[in-house]
Amino acid sequence: MQKKQLEILVTNDDGYTSKGINVLAELLVKYGNVTVVAPKEAQSGMSTALTLERPLRLHKISEQEKDNGNKLTIYALTGTPVDCVKMAMNRFYLHHKPHMLVSGINHGSNASVASVYSGTLGASAEGTIYGIPSMGVSLDSHMPNPDFSQVIAFMEPIMQNFMAVPPAPGVFLNINFPNICADQVKGIKFAKQGSGMWVKEFTQRTDPHGREYYWMTGEFLDTEKNPMGDHKLLEEGYVTIVPHNVDTTSYSELERLDTTWKL
Amino acid sequence: MQKKQLEILVTNDDGYTSKGINVLAELLVKYGNVTVVAPKEAQSGMSTALTLERPLRLHKISEQEKDNGNKLTIYALTGTPVDCVKMAMNRFYLHHKPHMLVSGINHGSNASVASVYSGTLGASAEGTIYGIPSMGVSLDSHMPNPDFSQVIAFMEPIMQNFMAVPPAPGVFLNINFPNICADQVKGIKFAKQGSGMWVKEFTQRTDPHGREYYWMTGEFLDTEKNPMGDHKLLEEGYVTIVPHNVDTTSYSELERLDTTWKL
Repeated sequence: MQKKQLEILVTNDDGYTSKGINVLAELLVKYGNVTVVAPKEAQSGMSTALTLERPLRLHKISEQEKDNGNKLTIYALTGTPVDCVKMAMNRFYLHHKPHMLVSGINHGSNASVASVYSGTLGASAEGTIYGIPSMGVSLDSHMPNPDFSQVIAFMEPIMQNFMAVPPAPGVFLNINFPNICADQVKGIKFAKQGSGMWVKEFTQRTDPHGREYYWMTGEFLDTEKNPMGDHKLLEEGYVTIVPHNVDTTSYSELERLDTTWKL
Repeated sequence: MQKKQLEILVTNDDGYTSKGINVLAELLVKYGNVTVVAPKEAQSGMSTALTLERPLRLHKISEQEKDNGNKLTIYALTGTPVDCVKMAMNRFYLHHKPHMLVSGINHGSNASVASVYSGTLGASAEGTIYGIPSMGVSLDSHMPNPDFSQVIAFMEPIMQNFMAVPPAPGVFLNINFPNICADQVKGIKFAKQGSGMWVKEFTQRTDPHGREYYWMTGEFLDTEKNPMGDHKLLEEGYVTIVPHNVDTTSYSELERLDTTWKL
């Protein structure tokens, strides 16, 4: 019996030229055909944002057949990570879904509250809405040219488990790698979304015309008490995996408010 | 004993000039001082997106004292709904949090999967991260000049309950109003985030230079089986309230994958 060809959709939020997505595409093309549809320009912090106010353009960048016979095709879209997933599904996968979506490798951690704003995870949420087993993969380094060798080393067992036991429908995985050598990594741990927030979020400057403007910046305020918070484990040297829901209804609050509000 | 003055932060994703936010501000200034910090231009579908690639400008639009002595101050920011909340917290509420955040009134429903992409709710999530009881309010009409009288009628009991029994920390409310007369509204119901997705999401066109471009559009595909799905109840003529979590960890999947993955 012929083995079914694996079709993998890849995107990110740093743009199609970033090192992370190119390392990821080369890693995944060992498993199957890879179609990259990624933003033309950096889209960090775009969460699940859509582009509604302007039209989008799609550019085919390259198409290669690898030595193992698998294809790697790369497209750039002038939109957000979610736009990329939607475009891929509407243009390339109308009649057959990809078997998985992998978003990343993000340059920068998406642990704790970063998961709320992350375009890497926005794309993973969109894949999940389309019923595709999806994960976002991030490295805790904002450098443009980091060493991804520990990610490459640990993605093999992660891929095997992901294919054997994918997340339940409506759930995607947020995987963060510490920025340390593979042999220093303490292991892989499932974790919860760590609690925290950004404070002191703007730097004020004055332009050459004397008018004020602001750059977003900030300091991370750690409010997590649970040692299972993902950013805690990441700091300790673990690869962390948080399963996230697309249905964010608080069922406990639904019940509590329904019985206490007088409507 | 002097009654504590209520401080209310208001934002939206349609921009500070939209009818919805101005109706909302006038409604809320009856309860306390209202500070509006809203996007300068429409930011629909921006979810919890941040502006990281360009600087932001903040413009003071107006300041009024109302007959009841409460103040209404309006600012416009050249950013996303989440940027607006962050700017308000860093510029105007450094030493005392507002007592509540209300985002809206959105021109268009944010029920079902729209909640994933909604800037109205992105702002509500950000308020929740800042520890402020927060709600997003939307009307199921995309018209620029709809009749908001049913919203005004039902916001009074909602405000009273919200102040008496606010959502638990980490939870915000997504409130949707049907686009019908107040006396046709069947009541207010707590609901779950309805299941659904958008399909046929792009219209392809050709520009005057012969190059293709795409507009995002789409048809809603209803996949909800549960009559408690918010878009189902909204269609039936109910005002719906969904409590949403900021911590989107799937604790059931965390447990299941932790015991089944071989790491």
